Amino acid sequence: MAPSLGNDKKFDTSDIFINNQNITESSSDFLYHFGLDKNNDDIPCRFHDVKFVCCGGSSKRMGHYAKIFAKEMNYEVPIDLSKSDRYCLYKTGKVLWVNHGIGAPSLSVMLNEIIKLLHYANCKDVSFIRLGTSGGIGVEPGTVVISSGALNGELKQEYNQWIMGKKVSRPCVVDEKLQSEIIETANLINIPQCSGLTLCADDFYEGQARLDGAFCDYNSEDKFTFLKELVEKGVRNFEMESTCFTALTSRANIKAAVCCVALLNRLNGDQVILDKNTYLEYEMRPFKLVTALLKRRLASV
Amino acid sequence: MAPSLGNDKKFDTSDIFINNQNITESSSDFLYHFGLDKNNDDIPCRFHDVKFVCCGGSSKRMGHYAKIFAKEMNYEVPIDLSKSDRYCLYKTGKVLWVNHGIGAPSLSVMLNEIIKLLHYANCKDVSFIRLGTSGGIGVEPGTVVISSGALNGELKQEYNQWIMGKKVSRPCVVDEKLQSEIIETANLINIPQCSGLTLCADDFYEGQARLDGAFCDYNSEDKFTFLKELVEKGVRNFEMESTCFTALTSRANIKAAVCCVALLNRLNGDQVILDKNTYLEYEMRPFKLVTALLKRRLASV
Repeated sequence: MAPSLGNDKKFDTSDIFINNQNITESSSDFLYHFGLDKNNDDIPCRFHDVKFVCCGGSSKRMGHYAKIFAKEMNYEVPIDLSKSDRYCLYKTGKVLWVNHGIGAPSLSVMLNEIIKLLHYANCKDVSFIRLGTSGGIGVEPGTVVISSGALNGELKQEYNQWIMGKKVSRPCVVDEKLQSEIIETANLINIPQCSGLTLCADDFYEGQARLDGAFCDYNSEDKFTFLKELVEKGVRNFEMESTCFTALTSRANIKAAVCCVALLNRLNGDQVILDKNTYLEYEMRPFKLVTALLKRRLASV
Repeated sequence: MAPSLGNDKKFDTSDIFINNQNITESSSDFLYHFGLDKNNDDIPCRFHDVKFVCCGGSSKRMGHYAKIFAKEMNYEVPIDLSKSDRYCLYKTGKVLWVNHGIGAPSLSVMLNEIIKLLHYANCKDVSFIRLGTSGGIGVEPGTVVISSGALNGELKQEYNQWIMGKKVSRPCVVDEKLQSEIIETANLINIPQCSGLTLCADDFYEGQARLDGAFCDYNSEDKFTFLKELVEKGVRNFEMESTCFTALTSRANIKAAVCCVALLNRLNGDQVILDKNTYLEYEMRPFKLVTALLKRRLASV
């Protein structure tokens, strides 16, 4: 089914699609988890030029990324535009930097509100990139995994929701062109990268077959059998948001890519033990990669 | 099946049960999302006396609660003991204050690591209370809903996990004695309360039948039919963590209760629009209630 625009305006294929007939130009809306009001916060004026939304779990990291990006681009130091402590929101020129917390439910709240914000601002041709950390499977620590697709815990490329007591499945769609450009950029600037499927788990421990959680009813052999099965299927990392991210962005006609650095190779262990400098260097790799891409892209938009 | 203690020590029924054979007294463990190290952060000495863990979504709110509680009890001003920005962690005497972000996946990470921390500290007879905000269903805004049980999106009292490609369901268990004590305390100090089931959704919009998200394929009539069905089943509020909270605590032999203030009555609307003072007053109600309970209980432990 082609996406439909549930409001009272004409639209073109570069628009953000809001699939909700209740949302009209005249309706009021308080974006509760950002504390922003559609009618009082000057959203069209402040956000109409946004072309990229970069997001990741930690608010501190996203604020850090936004500030370094502004410095590199000679923009003013950005301030947090969010009026709530649930999520942060920085704007540097045509790029937003937002955090989404941990897991699909937390991400889905942020996505719903940022998608509405961009729709109210009449933004066109917007791409969303998730820059995260992850557990690699058969890849060296420090490798940036550029997702070719997102699997749920059932190993299907679907984001499942329960809506009024019924299960609804949405397809997970990565934008292939954006993915290719990110791979090309990584190769240009010598950031170790690998393309592959990402398993989006609903928890950090049992959902990722770790042996070190508070609960574990399986053994090491079960774990390695599962991890090897994943490697054979083309899965290269675990994280906790990619199904929701690729499904909701696609539903809104937004191009999406996911690039997460592997902090460890799960075939060698479960614990994230890195010295501080190595950790900080790894954490900067998705940022360096996406910054290089943004610089190329922003020159042409 | 009776819970088993997966380590190499003797245990009694007041212990925290770690269901993981890999976790032994001698094993090392880095609690990654708090940045705390089992072997280097003096966990038994600093945390052995903990009897209550109070948690909620927002780190700012939990820090605020911890500081007011310390003041009321004449304790020193607590500092954030977490070395990571993912979750905060305050200790005021025998009470921990921790945030868990939004949604079950984010909560499950916090619970796994705090349960391990308390286990390493040899804590006994620990109770966990979630103090949150929620959307009431058929209850007046400002009412504190004290959960009698937690339902998932399928309307079952189960927390579902996907572990190595297989679905595993865990029962959601509220501690009835703790629940009764909280109700009794609310009545003593005149905090409007109501006991009922809580629907734990995996998102804030479609999962809670809201009409104001970026996506909505149903109409107002479908929404009200569903909300009325929930009222008939005894559901009194929506939030996003209670199934995971009651299932994982119960699995670890921890008593749990959930008390969330209703910020709105969903039968009257979807948006959270409260003036700042009313919002702050409502947000303090679960805290006032739990503080009154803690004062009674701490006098006897």
